[in-house]
Amino acid sequence: MTRKKLSIIGSVAFDTVETCHGRRKNVLGGSATFASLGASFFSPVNLISVVGADFPEKHFKMFERLNIDTAGLEKKKGRTFRWAARYDPDLLHRKTLSVNLNVFDGFRPEIPETVRPSDNLLLANIDPELQDWIFRRVDPSGLVACDTMNIWIENKKKHLLKLLKKIDILLLNDEEARQLSGEKNLLEAAKFISSAGVRMIVIKKGEHGALFFSRGLSFIVPAYLLENVTDPTGAGDTFAGAMMGYLTMKNRNSETNLRRSLVYGTILASFTVEKFSIDGLVGTTKGRLEKRVKHFEKLTRY
Amino acid sequence: MTRKKLSIIGSVAFDTVETCHGRRKNVLGGSATFASLGASFFSPVNLISVVGADFPEKHFKMFERLNIDTAGLEKKKGRTFRWAARYDPDLLHRKTLSVNLNVFDGFRPEIPETVRPSDNLLLANIDPELQDWIFRRVDPSGLVACDTMNIWIENKKKHLLKLLKKIDILLLNDEEARQLSGEKNLLEAAKFISSAGVRMIVIKKGEHGALFFSRGLSFIVPAYLLENVTDPTGAGDTFAGAMMGYLTMKNRNSETNLRRSLVYGTILASFTVEKFSIDGLVGTTKGRLEKRVKHFEKLTRY
Repeated sequence: MTRKKLSIIGSVAFDTVETCHGRRKNVLGGSATFASLGASFFSPVNLISVVGADFPEKHFKMFERLNIDTAGLEKKKGRTFRWAARYDPDLLHRKTLSVNLNVFDGFRPEIPETVRPSDNLLLANIDPELQDWIFRRVDPSGLVACDTMNIWIENKKKHLLKLLKKIDILLLNDEEARQLSGEKNLLEAAKFISSAGVRMIVIKKGEHGALFFSRGLSFIVPAYLLENVTDPTGAGDTFAGAMMGYLTMKNRNSETNLRRSLVYGTILASFTVEKFSIDGLVGTTKGRLEKRVKHFEKLTRY
Repeated sequence: MTRKKLSIIGSVAFDTVETCHGRRKNVLGGSATFASLGASFFSPVNLISVVGADFPEKHFKMFERLNIDTAGLEKKKGRTFRWAARYDPDLLHRKTLSVNLNVFDGFRPEIPETVRPSDNLLLANIDPELQDWIFRRVDPSGLVACDTMNIWIENKKKHLLKLLKKIDILLLNDEEARQLSGEKNLLEAAKFISSAGVRMIVIKKGEHGALFFSRGLSFIVPAYLLENVTDPTGAGDTFAGAMMGYLTMKNRNSETNLRRSLVYGTILASFTVEKFSIDGLVGTTKGRLEKRVKHFEKLTRY
């Protein structure tokens, strides 16, 4: 049997981010970037996205070095997707200062042959219309997860609800779960979303951990305690990528594997937020990851 | 060896509370009330407080029936402490509408003979000056915990810091930990508070669980997921009482016991918030408590 891979579609971008710890200009970001790097700790990845002529070769090389196949990472004339934001001092809220889709505008990728329908698929945080387009092109038979955010719930709710009926796992944060469901209570919100047709729901609560819901199984994972949070950008994307990478590696969605996939999502996200851009994540080794997982177990066992 | 008891000093009050689920007028409340009821699941309690002539005999009987000794619950001429508050629709914030100390004003209790220095002591949430006065009168040799809140940190910080050097455990919520320490990060806040002289710190995060810190040991307990939160009043007091009641019953502050004391605090607080006043707590049996603890274990194991 060939080893399963994880295909990830989402954005690859240059971010300009300002937090109380400083400012970084045009650093590597995007939902598919963080998700691919998070997943790469566990599983080979097919990265499907688009970048501009300004995207340096060294980033392609970094992806390849980390077992992230870039056959689906198209390079087009023009500029790479750019996003700029400033975080409040508490790092809980941010203001988007600018979004320039550039080459991402209207992007409909060629699906490379390396992407097999039997692979798992992560529709990282992008426009649900594009997520659905990809879903139909790939016609996946593996596990499919979809990550989303407030702007899509606000502007593309119909497309998102349509997509929910086809996928296995929806990831979103607590505020978004309330927004999508109209329910204040997260258990009620999960019930509502589940009734919309999705089998498993992961509600990400940032510094407060994450919740998992499916028929007959729910669980809670607290967040890892950090002394330094530098930049929350990419934490949710990393979580989604790591979770799906872990499940792809295990190739069986047993209860134990689902529970542990959330723990690995939590821990890898904790590395992401410690530094700007992808620095916390690419600076991490499997050894450091396992050490932090062990520490997390010590923190949470009773 | 005589079985250890837990002495609890704090307020016994009549609360008028309004939440999105309704309004209750002059219902039983107060930090010592919730703490005693929480502790009574595990350990006999000496309740030290004061009430007015308007305090009905049936409440004394209820306490006694639950193994809460009321020899230290003084009945004085005048009216019982009254407090009124309205919660925001999200139940996260509240506005205090009125506070009438009444018989509690200047209260310096007689310490009944049933309170032995060797018992454990919980200084439930009241003025740190009174907490310190009690501490000096009892001169405890057992485990001593102190619960506090924002108004005392704002107005009686010096007294609180003085008290911290004498006690074993400080309980406060996340915002209060930040307020007391001047540190935004909770790990840093705990370090600061620990350097002020207290050996163990419990940071209560409400719907997001609780954190425990001491030299060489820290851990995280998520909150129990609830479908219905009716009234958060008394959740923190219940937590403190249950935690100390559990440790009193176990009579050994091992790592396992400390960890499980936080779990029991979390679960008993979850019963408190499901109903107004003490209704959720007194409506709970040991069987229902253990059932919810088991469910919590299922929710949190990985």
